[in-house]
Amino acid sequence: MSAGPFGFELIRTDGSARLGRMRTAHGSVETPAFMPVATQGTVKSLTPADLTAAGAQIVLANTYHLLLRPGHELVRELGGLHRFMGWDGPILTDSGGFQVFSLSKLRRIGEAGVEFRSHVDGSLRTLSPESAVAIQHALGVDVLHPLDECLAHPATEAETERSLALTVRWLHRAVAAHRSAGASGALFGIVQGGVSHPLRRRAVEETCALGLPGYAIGGLAVGEPKPVLYEITELVAGRLPPDRPRYLMGVGKPTDLVEAVARGVDMFDCVMPTRNGRNGQAFTSDGPLTIGNARFSRDAAPLDPTCPCEACRRFSRAYIRHLFGARELLGYRLLSLHNLTFYLGLMRQMREAIAGGEFGPFRSRFLERYGVEAT
Amino acid sequence: MSAGPFGFELIRTDGSARLGRMRTAHGSVETPAFMPVATQGTVKSLTPADLTAAGAQIVLANTYHLLLRPGHELVRELGGLHRFMGWDGPILTDSGGFQVFSLSKLRRIGEAGVEFRSHVDGSLRTLSPESAVAIQHALGVDVLHPLDECLAHPATEAETERSLALTVRWLHRAVAAHRSAGASGALFGIVQGGVSHPLRRRAVEETCALGLPGYAIGGLAVGEPKPVLYEITELVAGRLPPDRPRYLMGVGKPTDLVEAVARGVDMFDCVMPTRNGRNGQAFTSDGPLTIGNARFSRDAAPLDPTCPCEACRRFSRAYIRHLFGARELLGYRLLSLHNLTFYLGLMRQMREAIAGGEFGPFRSRFLERYGVEAT
Repeated sequence: MSAGPFGFELIRTDGSARLGRMRTAHGSVETPAFMPVATQGTVKSLTPADLTAAGAQIVLANTYHLLLRPGHELVRELGGLHRFMGWDGPILTDSGGFQVFSLSKLRRIGEAGVEFRSHVDGSLRTLSPESAVAIQHALGVDVLHPLDECLAHPATEAETERSLALTVRWLHRAVAAHRSAGASGALFGIVQGGVSHPLRRRAVEETCALGLPGYAIGGLAVGEPKPVLYEITELVAGRLPPDRPRYLMGVGKPTDLVEAVARGVDMFDCVMPTRNGRNGQAFTSDGPLTIGNARFSRDAAPLDPTCPCEACRRFSRAYIRHLFGARELLGYRLLSLHNLTFYLGLMRQMREAIAGGEFGPFRSRFLERYGVEAT
Repeated sequence: MSAGPFGFELIRTDGSARLGRMRTAHGSVETPAFMPVATQGTVKSLTPADLTAAGAQIVLANTYHLLLRPGHELVRELGGLHRFMGWDGPILTDSGGFQVFSLSKLRRIGEAGVEFRSHVDGSLRTLSPESAVAIQHALGVDVLHPLDECLAHPATEAETERSLALTVRWLHRAVAAHRSAGASGALFGIVQGGVSHPLRRRAVEETCALGLPGYAIGGLAVGEPKPVLYEITELVAGRLPPDRPRYLMGVGKPTDLVEAVARGVDMFDCVMPTRNGRNGQAFTSDGPLTIGNARFSRDAAPLDPTCPCEACRRFSRAYIRHLFGARELLGYRLLSLHNLTFYLGLMRQMREAIAGGEFGPFRSRFLERYGVEAT
């Protein structure tokens, strides 16, 4: 399968933690990497220049959302998603599967694909393995994903097995569609299999048999207990080929990122830094803080004195608390910027720790300072 | 009266239009000037760095809003409003009068002052000529205003005369309070008098008798017909001392700014660029446009090809329309930034036209291109 200029280089390992570099037509990404979520073609409240300032090297956008609004054909007509949203770095899209199963009124799932009602206007839509790939080609993204079925947690072993089999059959169709289109962009595989060890092992085998340029770990961070998240991550990452990037979808909290890097994951995405930011939560090295707390009302200190972001360089906790109390848009923007800066700074620290062979001590120090109760 | 380092220099005139420079402890302001409105200590969705990029040299904040939230004592404790909001340029505050009369449940107005219920928490508050000045001293602003009574339009001649007399008595108390406090900052007078020519003339005389460092024209842009706005502006500005800056409160649309500069006004404030921006209206040299209009859905052009703002440099109308359709925060931010850039650019163009003795032709060209129907 042609992946255009796509490539992955594993630079060094430290235990199971990996330092690497992913190459795309829109530039390189140092891994472990965190991808800010540009759900509808915008990381909420922030510009591409803000993302660069925060340290982002790649962003994620949601195929489902862009399909419904403004529509992938419109984006193609306007030169593709990079030009449309003004971000010239790499873009990764999910397949739309997760949102079909979580946001829309699902009408019918069958061998051919899924039929669902748009959560935007109630219109009836379909998504197939072939159309999901074609939509992502229209968007012109660097990394795309095959349509998969996303089971809710908990699911029985039998349900999980049936679902996994469908996801693998869909993967074969997605790969064929991608190959025959001759489009650029790297199609990753998604490893499903719920919380079942045997099914996860089978999923890795059947997915990796296709020799794809990268692999996502799907179906986690959907409500399972934290030890299960770590256990399945370790099981899957330990079986994926070392020369391909590994992307843990939808994860997670700062401690989850550290624990998953320790288990060999290279890429992450999560709405938490921006969504929690809009809800008044600021991440810091000492754990999260709730800016609305009365103890910050006269606090002249920045959110995090070690943080280089504009929110911390220019404003006090008291001011940002005032912005939230007055429901001012700048408050949402400043905490989104700060939280992404924190997340992306954490990834950089992890990369530096791996490069120096110091990931183990870094992990211990981080977790101790961040606080267990704050996971 | 001591106005600290405050001063105003009239550089040149072109007809009644004036080019000047206002000096404050926080820097100079070239006039004619437009002041972005930082209602609650923030120009909605924008940072101080954005304001500087847009060309702002001074901002306005609302005494009433800051009194209620977060409270002027808290702002004083945190080093004053400049430090609190991260803006180190000049700040002007209104007296709170306008909001007391427009936003709060007014309880009682008397010789002593006004008693009202906070629109934030329903608490009973008072504002007097003395406390209004003291609050603005606590905020530490560069230009402050005396408490005035703001009549609704229309009002009878008798009501207007009674109200004006009260405003003038309050002005004397405000000046005494300001002088005895020995605080820095320049206290402007506010000329009221409704739409009555004799009362406006009396207001100018009685206000200017106090020899204040600047004069505001209040009680306009409250619903009176446009010809009345221009007529009263011309009447008042024509009688104010030429060596003091003249500030037309709450005005206005781009054409209003041009018409008021033509009548000798130096300073303006209005929520229109930011509020209309959040409602999807973009100002351009060819008149305003509504970004939600279907004709922009595939429009790859910027809002205004001649505009230097980040919204116009990086994004298409189609993208910004998508942001508004999806109710994305970035849309509000981009149109706010663009509209302020347009307003501040218009002021710069007017200053250049006056400097070159070309204000008349500029005014004609601007109005013709902008469009009469778009006033």
